[in-house]
Amino acid sequence: MASTGQVIRCKAAVAWEAGKPLVMEEVDVAPPQAMEVRVKILFTSLCHTDVYFWEAKGQTPLFPRIFGHEAGGIVESVGEGVTDLEPGDHVLPVFTGECKECRHCKSEESNMCDLLRINTDRGVMLNDGKSRFSIRGQPIYHFVGTSTFSEYTVVHVGCLAKINPAAPLDKVCVLSCGISTGLGATLNVAKPKKGSTVAIFGLGAVGLAAAEGARISGASRIIGVDLNANRFDEAKKFGVTEFVNPKDHDKPVHEVIAEMTNGGVDRSVECTGSVSAMISAFECVHDGWGVAVLVGVPNKDDAFKTHPMNILNEKTLKGTFFGNYKPRSDLPSVVEKYMNKVTSYT
Amino acid sequence: MASTGQVIRCKAAVAWEAGKPLVMEEVDVAPPQAMEVRVKILFTSLCHTDVYFWEAKGQTPLFPRIFGHEAGGIVESVGEGVTDLEPGDHVLPVFTGECKECRHCKSEESNMCDLLRINTDRGVMLNDGKSRFSIRGQPIYHFVGTSTFSEYTVVHVGCLAKINPAAPLDKVCVLSCGISTGLGATLNVAKPKKGSTVAIFGLGAVGLAAAEGARISGASRIIGVDLNANRFDEAKKFGVTEFVNPKDHDKPVHEVIAEMTNGGVDRSVECTGSVSAMISAFECVHDGWGVAVLVGVPNKDDAFKTHPMNILNEKTLKGTFFGNYKPRSDLPSVVEKYMNKVTSYT
Repeated sequence: MASTGQVIRCKAAVAWEAGKPLVMEEVDVAPPQAMEVRVKILFTSLCHTDVYFWEAKGQTPLFPRIFGHEAGGIVESVGEGVTDLEPGDHVLPVFTGECKECRHCKSEESNMCDLLRINTDRGVMLNDGKSRFSIRGQPIYHFVGTSTFSEYTVVHVGCLAKINPAAPLDKVCVLSCGISTGLGATLNVAKPKKGSTVAIFGLGAVGLAAAEGARISGASRIIGVDLNANRFDEAKKFGVTEFVNPKDHDKPVHEVIAEMTNGGVDRSVECTGSVSAMISAFECVHDGWGVAVLVGVPNKDDAFKTHPMNILNEKTLKGTFFGNYKPRSDLPSVVEKYMNKVTSYT
Repeated sequence: MASTGQVIRCKAAVAWEAGKPLVMEEVDVAPPQAMEVRVKILFTSLCHTDVYFWEAKGQTPLFPRIFGHEAGGIVESVGEGVTDLEPGDHVLPVFTGECKECRHCKSEESNMCDLLRINTDRGVMLNDGKSRFSIRGQPIYHFVGTSTFSEYTVVHVGCLAKINPAAPLDKVCVLSCGISTGLGATLNVAKPKKGSTVAIFGLGAVGLAAAEGARISGASRIIGVDLNANRFDEAKKFGVTEFVNPKDHDKPVHEVIAEMTNGGVDRSVECTGSVSAMISAFECVHDGWGVAVLVGVPNKDDAFKTHPMNILNEKTLKGTFFGNYKPRSDLPSVVEKYMNKVTSYT
């Protein structure tokens, strides 16, 4: 392409200060360096994590910055050493990466790459410790290696999933964060068996995707737990069969669920980030075989607290990050699930 | 046999009061009722749990009582409905049972039988709610369904493992509690891979058996953690390769282990019952794939407490009970391991 190796001037939504409205600016986007890729972003969505770091409450503020990490785009040009991608490839940028070389990438179980694991404090590229964005010479920081609130962005090749070019980018862009996080938490970590009972704590986007994972797995009962009863109708579309609003009960929610299910659910997935919901999600699984999976990100000072006998009764507690999907290896198959309209594994 | 259907008078060590020396008495042992078996005990060992309930501190006291639950014996007679066992069979009585009918027994994952799960508060048999022991007509309570500190005892058929008659009962009697608990915690629950690193917290009998499980699994490094350095020499015989005494360090033991192992061990097994050791055992496993298994029984008021991010970093926390062995189905194979001197799975 004519732009290869050249700076591209394009529009981006720039956060100049914490909590202040983003400003549409003309930004200069430098060409990709070694192991980097410049991507034309066609669609981007807004995730709560963008808002959280834009507000920068209790965070290290890093401004000016270009936010955005749920997106879909097309490769414009590639830097030295990039062999997996070429201009024209359709990609989803991901806030965490896969170098394919470290112990985590080589492990079958982990997706927490040593090199490219999410780093919210870093606002520059790894190759030279500098930003690829500037406005009249002033550097603008990156965000989680993606910065998709820009028409063009530069991303490490390890943070790009090459996907089926037939997939509609306006739809599948949301698979690069919350949806895969929830879906993978159920399919890859909780792994409910056919006919089992599953409780989902929190019916936002992540929780709905977790419910969808339970539905695909053939769970017979999917109990949605949320403080907002308005979410139940939407949740039904994702497979939730019963609803528990903790506000409707005088007893702890794990006791309510234990009574509904003859001792507890087979699996639970916690998608709120509230530490009390995490504890309930653990305590509501059945002894002997129950597995609770934590997804939501807690506050800095929270403590997960339970009586050890709850653990010794042969319950399992697991945490997951990005649904245990490895971004480059696994995300293309999630897009394929959408394309093939997978509705059930059973 | 001549004794079938008759009361047997024999010797037993009876605990008349909490914390008072046991007294050798002549006791009458009634014949087994439906689904019960009368066993001649040839060997019995002493477990800390016997002492704990004999002291009865903070427990519901139930006296007079016959303690004892690690033992080996021979079936003397069987009650109505018992088809799995016959007089002369060699058996290990187990403090928890397997009815083979409930959800737990039918689950591949659980050994926490609904009918025969350990019950330390019950001092009578299930069939009629009465004791089979008496002295001059005064009932003497059972303990965890075994009461092996008696020459003869009556046990529910679901709490008896039929074992290879060639196995020396004076040796394999210890497989009916602590050894299987530790060994199974590693082999059945932690499941370390060949070449992995394993930390064992507590190097008593249970911990040594857990270390043995790690050695059999082919772990390359087995780190023993104990406050008593005198235990290390013995522990080497069970495969422990390195020793950490928390008293020797200024920093928390999980940090010491993380430094020794480039970020944490692959597996840990907690065999002390100290809640701080439980927390350390969890926090010392590697993110991405680490699994911590809790075995030790905590105090009533203990709380397991950790920051949720420790969980979200893709660590797993599991509890186990009797090493996840189903007493009737699985214990005979543990005896076979001893008979075949299994030293490695690799």
